[in-house]
Amino acid sequence: MNGDRSGLARVLAPRSVAVVGASPTRKGPATTVLANLRAAAAPPAAYAVNNRYAGHDGFHASVASLPEVPDVVVVAVPAGAVSDVVREAADCGTGSFLVLSSGFAEAGEEGRAREAELKALALERGLTVLGPNSLGVFNFASGVHLTFGTVIGGHVPAADEVGRAALIVQSGAIGSYLTGMAKPRTPFRYMFSTGNELVLTAGDLVAHLARDPEIDVIALYIEGTDDGRALLEAISLAGSLGKRVVLLPAGESAASSRAAASHTAAMASSNVLTRMLAANAGAFTADTPEELLGTVAVLLGHGEPRAPGVGIVSVSGGAGVITADRLAEAGLEIPEPAPETVERLRAALPGFVVPGNPTDTTAGAVYDPSIMVGALGALAGDPGVGQLITLMGAGGEHAPAIAAALIEAAPKLAKPNQLVWQACPEAVRPVLAAGPVPVSPTLANAVGVARALCRPGPVRAEDAADDGPLPDLAGLAPDGGGFLTESQSRELLRSAGLPIAAAAVLGPDAEHGFALDSAVAFPVAVKLQAAGVRHKTEIGGIVLDVRDEDELREAVRATAAAARERVPGIAIEGWTVEQMAPRGVEVLLSARHDPAYGPVVLAGSGGVQAELIGDLWAMAAPIGPDAARELLARTKVGRVLSGYRGRDTDLGPLCAVIARLSGLVARLPRIREIECNPVIVAGDGTATIADSLVELADSRS
Amino acid sequence: MNGDRSGLARVLAPRSVAVVGASPTRKGPATTVLANLRAAAAPPAAYAVNNRYAGHDGFHASVASLPEVPDVVVVAVPAGAVSDVVREAADCGTGSFLVLSSGFAEAGEEGRAREAELKALALERGLTVLGPNSLGVFNFASGVHLTFGTVIGGHVPAADEVGRAALIVQSGAIGSYLTGMAKPRTPFRYMFSTGNELVLTAGDLVAHLARDPEIDVIALYIEGTDDGRALLEAISLAGSLGKRVVLLPAGESAASSRAAASHTAAMASSNVLTRMLAANAGAFTADTPEELLGTVAVLLGHGEPRAPGVGIVSVSGGAGVITADRLAEAGLEIPEPAPETVERLRAALPGFVVPGNPTDTTAGAVYDPSIMVGALGALAGDPGVGQLITLMGAGGEHAPAIAAALIEAAPKLAKPNQLVWQACPEAVRPVLAAGPVPVSPTLANAVGVARALCRPGPVRAEDAADDGPLPDLAGLAPDGGGFLTESQSRELLRSAGLPIAAAAVLGPDAEHGFALDSAVAFPVAVKLQAAGVRHKTEIGGIVLDVRDEDELREAVRATAAAARERVPGIAIEGWTVEQMAPRGVEVLLSARHDPAYGPVVLAGSGGVQAELIGDLWAMAAPIGPDAARELLARTKVGRVLSGYRGRDTDLGPLCAVIARLSGLVARLPRIREIECNPVIVAGDGTATIADSLVELADSRS
Repeated sequence: MNGDRSGLARVLAPRSVAVVGASPTRKGPATTVLANLRAAAAPPAAYAVNNRYAGHDGFHASVASLPEVPDVVVVAVPAGAVSDVVREAADCGTGSFLVLSSGFAEAGEEGRAREAELKALALERGLTVLGPNSLGVFNFASGVHLTFGTVIGGHVPAADEVGRAALIVQSGAIGSYLTGMAKPRTPFRYMFSTGNELVLTAGDLVAHLARDPEIDVIALYIEGTDDGRALLEAISLAGSLGKRVVLLPAGESAASSRAAASHTAAMASSNVLTRMLAANAGAFTADTPEELLGTVAVLLGHGEPRAPGVGIVSVSGGAGVITADRLAEAGLEIPEPAPETVERLRAALPGFVVPGNPTDTTAGAVYDPSIMVGALGALAGDPGVGQLITLMGAGGEHAPAIAAALIEAAPKLAKPNQLVWQACPEAVRPVLAAGPVPVSPTLANAVGVARALCRPGPVRAEDAADDGPLPDLAGLAPDGGGFLTESQSRELLRSAGLPIAAAAVLGPDAEHGFALDSAVAFPVAVKLQAAGVRHKTEIGGIVLDVRDEDELREAVRATAAAARERVPGIAIEGWTVEQMAPRGVEVLLSARHDPAYGPVVLAGSGGVQAELIGDLWAMAAPIGPDAARELLARTKVGRVLSGYRGRDTDLGPLCAVIARLSGLVARLPRIREIECNPVIVAGDGTATIADSLVELADSRS
Repeated sequence: MNGDRSGLARVLAPRSVAVVGASPTRKGPATTVLANLRAAAAPPAAYAVNNRYAGHDGFHASVASLPEVPDVVVVAVPAGAVSDVVREAADCGTGSFLVLSSGFAEAGEEGRAREAELKALALERGLTVLGPNSLGVFNFASGVHLTFGTVIGGHVPAADEVGRAALIVQSGAIGSYLTGMAKPRTPFRYMFSTGNELVLTAGDLVAHLARDPEIDVIALYIEGTDDGRALLEAISLAGSLGKRVVLLPAGESAASSRAAASHTAAMASSNVLTRMLAANAGAFTADTPEELLGTVAVLLGHGEPRAPGVGIVSVSGGAGVITADRLAEAGLEIPEPAPETVERLRAALPGFVVPGNPTDTTAGAVYDPSIMVGALGALAGDPGVGQLITLMGAGGEHAPAIAAALIEAAPKLAKPNQLVWQACPEAVRPVLAAGPVPVSPTLANAVGVARALCRPGPVRAEDAADDGPLPDLAGLAPDGGGFLTESQSRELLRSAGLPIAAAAVLGPDAEHGFALDSAVAFPVAVKLQAAGVRHKTEIGGIVLDVRDEDELREAVRATAAAARERVPGIAIEGWTVEQMAPRGVEVLLSARHDPAYGPVVLAGSGGVQAELIGDLWAMAAPIGPDAARELLARTKVGRVLSGYRGRDTDLGPLCAVIARLSGLVARLPRIREIECNPVIVAGDGTATIADSLVELADSRS
């Protein structure tokens, strides 16, 4: 962060604000900011500044002409004039700026130049700047909003309706909706729209709010970041200070197109990494704005679940079953109640009801609210239940009594609880919305929130630096970088001490005969090599399970013919002949430099189905073998390997490979990516890299 | 269906109704039914019957004592008295019954006996019976409801507020919520709660409604069925008559526990089959009640999408990106707009906006509703866009104008469109709810509905009967049925002409030496055989890639030692020594008798990760090779095998295996299940069953 922390504190509690760009006649952002400011119960001194209207009542020609140095200058002038306004105000002594103007980096070449100029100015003068292209800041605690946005649809929450969360968004509109959806109570004390993040980034704000004693939960909407490591450090810092961070990442589906050049398109782009790396730093992750809100509400009310299971109490058996189905699909547990819980349920429920989870109270609960409250209390007391979902429906004339009972019971449950009330009578809605039980708009949303609440948690293993020998990259891909040939990739990995199946290389004339290295034993895999061909299966360039020299000769002929047919004029460089790796579980490993997050390592299910399985998790590199084990534990394939269906594979060799790969990419910035797919993990744990692809950056860069 | 169709027609339009079990003093189901009946604009003659209150004003002692034979008798007496009431009314000539009473099969042994008695009576007399344990029937078209449920929270929709859908539910509560959630307009003309389905099943009602000229869409909530084939036939019939069926299946997560005895727990229970088999019959499938409602609303409004892509128009870039992310995650396409669409978007959008999909109208659309309408029109005209999602948020004072514009534009789009309006101003909600654009309560719900709208569609291939030779099951598992040993399973499949890798069998004394059949070539897989051991990997009973006789001797010793350690006292029967199948893609195939659906065949991703991948699709058996190809097309592994990443495997051999397995299970009822996992499909398409498990029913049964 540039600018001092006190600069941001002034944005949240300014004594005086200049709003530059206001107009006495035209509606516009600056005018709305002034109106919002002046609507506060205890407004700061607010000055309208516009040199075109200096003569008008209450208008000032410039910041310099104000009777005092304003704590904050809000800039809402055309983009081309912003730098001058900021410079003049900085000359007067103002250090905190909120730039609402758009027309910067988001608006093409000219805008980028303007943004660079403004950034240079801000850095040179040590200014605190939020924006440009920001919607501003909401402060629901003081009512002093610095924004041209709609403040909760005009509703001004009372002091006791403001929660202990803060919201940071990289899209002003999303921030505005999130605050508007949460009324009448708002979980958010502040909302910050970061805009183009010229100076203050989302990470800076997280780090600031992590130290705010009024804030327990920090909610984040992230579309991208230039400095991912700083964001992750801020999330970790917040966690270490006892704050919970809830993240809604966006732009994840761009992965497929952006990563198309990679060997396996399952590879993650920066935006996909955000979710995984933030979770590794301890964040909760939500999938939609509604889930973000629900997660924040639950965390503010009852903290996070301390057991993995979900308890379901439903007035309708069907709704309970559907909820259980969707929870199971999301990977959550719906535990059988413990014997004591069953007894407590039996005491709470009508005689003919079979206690269980889901608990079906049957329709009798509509007439006697104590049934549902008793069932909730019983399930809440179960050691396997970390959180609850209560399902009500309709209720007619009995609805208000049930709502009152649920609201009264909520604090006693002492576990996170969400309420889904389908076909809720209109009269009951506002009562519920004002109560302590987070109400989920749909059954699926409650399931999404329940999933978000079960965060994987921060990575526990200590970093361990890789100190193995580094391979020599000199002379490889000298012309502007690019993908190495298969044999170059293999040689690089072998020289780095990584386990590669034994192999021989046949030259381009192998079609006319060859002599095979005796170190290679059959069966072998034969792979045609040609510059520029990455997806060898697509040109028929691979034959597996070649059992003797006759079959090998045939495989060389067949792959050459197939490749020439599919890529006319292809320049065949030769063939690699690899001893078939032992059978086993196929794992995909990748170590790469990400533009936003720097070196990262990924692991997941490998093989030809890798992309369809979509099982990948990432960690910031380098990591040691212990963290590699945690990385695997966050993947499906890791669960297959360890303890699933009686398997209990020694993960040591695979973890060593992961750690080494992560070290290589972290220590050799010229490596853009090393992808190994598949790595074959045999029953005894032996890990063998069966195929790999390495991309280097230009050696001159 | 038992009972004639006219009996059901009378339930929907009774001229006279007797309600047995009503009380002049106590509130209860029968009293509510009478009140609901009498609230109709044109109520039928409604008679209160209760022999305890025969003296009271308006009460009759029995159906026999009524002045006319009622079209329908509603029974709400204690379970033990139901048969007598029905018999007496049948004696009088009534043929249509609605039994609301509970206490039947859902209530233990005594209840099951009562239900059997009532069923025998109904069948003997040819009665039309809905229930028992039914919530009744809503008829929103006539307002003549036969129910003790809450009718849309008391709201009585006008004639033009009633849609052309019907709802059939196996949980009265869900039905009541669904009708309550859909107000003020209701998509549903009728709602039927089927209760215990003594006579009338959900399938019967589908078949009846398929012929109702007032009905276009049939919505179904299914928790289970005794006669799955009848349900599927009814769904197919509805499709052939131009009706659309939307299904919400429940109880799918029970699969894991119920199928625990199976080889691979990914195996499907009846309830999991419902979703797949109904989709094969042409149904749309939803995941939650809210998604069911949304899907029905879209289908009623604009039918189903005719292209796979989704177009997104969003007033907030962020909301559009999140929606695209979730759509992509759900497997839906978000196509790039065609060049003409880009031009039309450019004309509709402000100059600085880059046309695309998602289309970000930017906040300017709040001030000028024509921007959003223009963008919607442009995307709707794109040939790749089959349906649209419109994202609005907040809007303040401009919200009513935008709502009006969207409502006006809806009919012209001529493509399914859903609206998500986050933080919608209160005043606008009812306007939207009454309008023609289906409003989705959350972003995730709109995505769920979009997915449900993209049904796989009915299976096109004609059935082809398997006419291969049948293996001899005599003498196998004679004592009460059960799992065959591995060698029995192999022999059975081999004798049925299925492709099994070459194998030899070693006896229990192989630890002390053996002579190997020369037909088996190394490398081989060694599998220990012992009665009752199904998950051989769990006891260390499998060694793969054994390369010579020395390794084989070692493998025999090692597996014996591991098995004895993990299962003390294990009776080792020997070892199978199988030639390793060629490498390739691992597929899981299963053919089984399902209690509800009869013979079915399933295919999906196989191997040790099969359960984690969760990629299975089912078809009713038998199927021919063409249908097998369609089955594979509905699986992820099918996409891997055909045309994905340059692969274009000949599916012929695998389809032949699928067809043969489906024929075996269909023709030999003693086969409970044949599971093959993995079936290895090599690059040339050769399919080899590498492992199999067969379970037989008792030969005496």
